[in-house]
Amino acid sequence: MHYIVWIEQFSGMLQRLSHCLTQAETHAAAQGFDVNSLLQERLAPDQFPLVQQVQVACDNLKLMAARLSKTEAPRHEDNESTLAELQERIASTLEFVKGIPAEAYADADHVQVSFPWLPDKHLMGPDYFVQFAVPNLCFHLTTAYAILRYKGVPLGKQDFLARLDFHPGAAQN
Amino acid sequence: MHYIVWIEQFSGMLQRLSHCLTQAETHAAAQGFDVNSLLQERLAPDQFPLVQQVQVACDNLKLMAARLSKTEAPRHEDNESTLAELQERIASTLEFVKGIPAEAYADADHVQVSFPWLPDKHLMGPDYFVQFAVPNLCFHLTTAYAILRYKGVPLGKQDFLARLDFHPGAAQN
Repeated sequence: MHYIVWIEQFSGMLQRLSHCLTQAETHAAAQGFDVNSLLQERLAPDQFPLVQQVQVACDNLKLMAARLSKTEAPRHEDNESTLAELQERIASTLEFVKGIPAEAYADADHVQVSFPWLPDKHLMGPDYFVQFAVPNLCFHLTTAYAILRYKGVPLGKQDFLARLDFHPGAAQN
Repeated sequence: MHYIVWIEQFSGMLQRLSHCLTQAETHAAAQGFDVNSLLQERLAPDQFPLVQQVQVACDNLKLMAARLSKTEAPRHEDNESTLAELQERIASTLEFVKGIPAEAYADADHVQVSFPWLPDKHLMGPDYFVQFAVPNLCFHLTTAYAILRYKGVPLGKQDFLARLDFHPGAAQN
């Protein structure tokens, strides 16, 4: 599976997170509370709150795309304090990722990735992608969704999954 | 990326879920409560409880491997009522998946997949994998972890992620 297929899939899933946040806004308006109060909610005292789950999910997608395509990533300050600002963060992330052409991932299998917290080691591109980038992105997308569910936002699996390219006819194998 | 690389990655992540359940057992023993009481915990009244999150995660991996390799999957009755039985369910799933050789996925790109809830349509193997199977598996692995976090089990990201194949030396690109 070419990297670009996954990048497009995860871009679709980040769009679904944006949709879930919009659902939260509708829910808050109907219930008469300030939707921004949800940003500091979390499931455990030592867990990132919703605002940080969304920021990290955005950075997971941004950095996955940037590293594997050797494209410089735009800097984000992690200073969002409203749901509207989180929506802008998502939009900015999606715009950056969409601007990277499929050809830019041609050398992704040979990219080396180091992290600030372990600077003298590296992962090869495919291991970075499969073992680290994808699990982390899915983790934060799901945890953001879980916090919204926990706070009563009416959501279901269909709000989490992105596009499904069905074809007509029962499977023939 | 060959399917088998992903299957091995997700097998590793299901093993980590088993590890998280073991952590829950240790925590329950230290706190003096019955660990099996966690099985019915959930984050929202209309969400699957922990027991079902684990069952579905197991089935997501089992069916992803079975469908893409055209291997018949073993049947599981979804009748687990203790954490020990959930651990057996995970072990049985991992054993099945491990028994499928890499060559069995050779035709995965041309497999067609239908679902009982939409029997007259199908997804092609790659779309099934990227759009449905992987997001669902990651969703249920993360939600099981989130429920454990919510109930106070001491866990962190390192308990969720599987193997990371680091090489010595800073990245050179």
